[in-house]
Amino acid sequence: MSKKKENNIGLVETHYFNFSEPSNEFILESGVKLDPATIAYETYGKLNSKKTNAILIAHAFSGDAHAAGYHKGEKKPGWWDNMIGPGKAFDTEKYFIICSNVLGGCKGSSGPATINPKTKKAYGVDFPFVTIADMVNAQKLLIDHLGIKKLLSIAGGSMGGMQALQWMVSYPEAIRSAIPIATTAKHSPMQIAFNEVGRQAIMADPHWKEGNYYDDKRPLKGLSVARMVGHITYMSENSMDNKFGRKLKSNRGIEKFTADFEVEGYLQYRGDSFTRRFDPNSYLYITKAMDLFDAGQGKSLHESLKELKANVLVLAFKSDWLYPTAQSKEIVKACKMAGVNATFCEIDSNYGHDAFLLEIEKEAHLIKHFLQKILNEID
Amino acid sequence: MSKKKENNIGLVETHYFNFSEPSNEFILESGVKLDPATIAYETYGKLNSKKTNAILIAHAFSGDAHAAGYHKGEKKPGWWDNMIGPGKAFDTEKYFIICSNVLGGCKGSSGPATINPKTKKAYGVDFPFVTIADMVNAQKLLIDHLGIKKLLSIAGGSMGGMQALQWMVSYPEAIRSAIPIATTAKHSPMQIAFNEVGRQAIMADPHWKEGNYYDDKRPLKGLSVARMVGHITYMSENSMDNKFGRKLKSNRGIEKFTADFEVEGYLQYRGDSFTRRFDPNSYLYITKAMDLFDAGQGKSLHESLKELKANVLVLAFKSDWLYPTAQSKEIVKACKMAGVNATFCEIDSNYGHDAFLLEIEKEAHLIKHFLQKILNEID
Repeated sequence: MSKKKENNIGLVETHYFNFSEPSNEFILESGVKLDPATIAYETYGKLNSKKTNAILIAHAFSGDAHAAGYHKGEKKPGWWDNMIGPGKAFDTEKYFIICSNVLGGCKGSSGPATINPKTKKAYGVDFPFVTIADMVNAQKLLIDHLGIKKLLSIAGGSMGGMQALQWMVSYPEAIRSAIPIATTAKHSPMQIAFNEVGRQAIMADPHWKEGNYYDDKRPLKGLSVARMVGHITYMSENSMDNKFGRKLKSNRGIEKFTADFEVEGYLQYRGDSFTRRFDPNSYLYITKAMDLFDAGQGKSLHESLKELKANVLVLAFKSDWLYPTAQSKEIVKACKMAGVNATFCEIDSNYGHDAFLLEIEKEAHLIKHFLQKILNEID
Repeated sequence: MSKKKENNIGLVETHYFNFSEPSNEFILESGVKLDPATIAYETYGKLNSKKTNAILIAHAFSGDAHAAGYHKGEKKPGWWDNMIGPGKAFDTEKYFIICSNVLGGCKGSSGPATINPKTKKAYGVDFPFVTIADMVNAQKLLIDHLGIKKLLSIAGGSMGGMQALQWMVSYPEAIRSAIPIATTAKHSPMQIAFNEVGRQAIMADPHWKEGNYYDDKRPLKGLSVARMVGHITYMSENSMDNKFGRKLKSNRGIEKFTADFEVEGYLQYRGDSFTRRFDPNSYLYITKAMDLFDAGQGKSLHESLKELKANVLVLAFKSDWLYPTAQSKEIVKACKMAGVNATFCEIDSNYGHDAFLLEIEKEAHLIKHFLQKILNEID
């Protein structure tokens, strides 16, 4: 078998789970009923007969259900393809992997761009507020729908890690393990501040029009600026130095205030390309859900974890200044205080917050062994 | 004498130095001639008969010539009033203090908001590019005009520190000492990236109109977003935690995506208030000057410092992640390699980059003794 074939799960398709079927009514934490409500999801590998090998992958802020493999006609694989597949960290020859787009998102799940059945137009900011707990409650219904009583694991980086923490708090009986990566139990004021700048950039764009832009020009310039801020926070001083230094652009503009440095051109490119794949209102909803998230629900986190019997693997990356290691250690400390079996590892990396998507070898090694141990305990 | 009176230099006025007088023609680094050209400046204390007690204070990005004392009818003193005055770090009973607004600025010196004599309208982005060296060349002409052959010192924080470094390189014979504070010999890609986001936010505002907004609405929303990004980088994780934590605003909006957290309200307030005192085009010009600044002029910094006989005091602040201590150490290293007498001190502070404006006691102590030593060497 060639290496390529061995690692490749090949073509995949997105599925849609509609909550509006009888008995699947979906009520948000706020009490608001979402009807109809849909979440997009993908699965990789095979669910075993006892349904004990399912792992839920939760995506980060700008991710989607397409975590691995290829969509027909596309050249780029899913966002965590280097971690999910035969022989990889999330080994599809052993595990049944599920990934769904978060509620409030714009990649197939219900969100502000969804048509409001009452008005026949996109909701815009009339879409109800969603929380990280709402996202997780929706995932739980999907898991129920797939006939899975207990997940082997719930894993995710950044906002995906927040969802893993929410599972630990909301559904402790439904998970055998959890892997929160490069995340926090609650945002610091600095994390809130960076998100707020992004939101203000979008809302400052006159095309935003209080969120009612779906029939018109979209607030793409604001979204692009928001994404640029994000990208800076995802990198490290070191990774920027290595990637760009003070190199000047080869096709430096003769116009004033165009990009002189490569780092400027890169940020503009990343900002622009993001506008082709993301809904500005989803940016507002999802960042707000992150900022308001508090895994401890106002109490100490360890009190919220008292029911948890699952094993927990907490991963952080040394150069990640957006979600610094100290925040991961807080999670580990709360686990220990709650009597939860938690392992912590800080991975040496220069990639900053992006490391959870890039530092594959070290990350895969730790996760592979952790999952195997959980699997062994069942057999 | 009451303490208040002792510390207060009282009412001050801004003066204007016009370069267009014969023999004061001003040519920029780019070769472009600026005519007329003006810089606004203030002075505090008295120049002694030998003209040996003059200290030039260089302001940071958003500063101005009004460094100390009060303008008539105003309740807020100059931006470094706690450092400049009788008995303070820059003791006006000993020293003659000069502070001028940078070229390209918007507080009385020639900049993009100045009327272009050819068109009788504001220059906008037709104003020529200015560099940190241009700013310093203009200051040198002002110093000449005041009859001062050699400054006792040139001091400044952040972009003010860049100007101090430029004086060390451009006019080594005209300074007895220099105090670069919380600064760098050249911007890292991350520093450039944060500035670029600010510029993009301004230029994304439709009111920017390629810089021609002076007869119309100004791009204030873009400028406000730019300033919000800046403010985050001026604070530290710790100072934000202490100031805001996750405290919710008392008058929390019922509207969606208004400020929930105090930190959001604070940033919006600081962004808004900045728009009442700063010209968006000056934001573009001055940040670009900072990004393109390289005290070593493409060579190693120590080679550019070989002519320097002045004593140098380099100050950095522990929690400053925008201009981290490592960048100050690079300056000290270059001084040492060039045989320059340099002293380095990292001040313990939680205030982040803002510390150079806030950590007065420690900063004043170091500067006071350093300056006294320089003064003693003359007498």
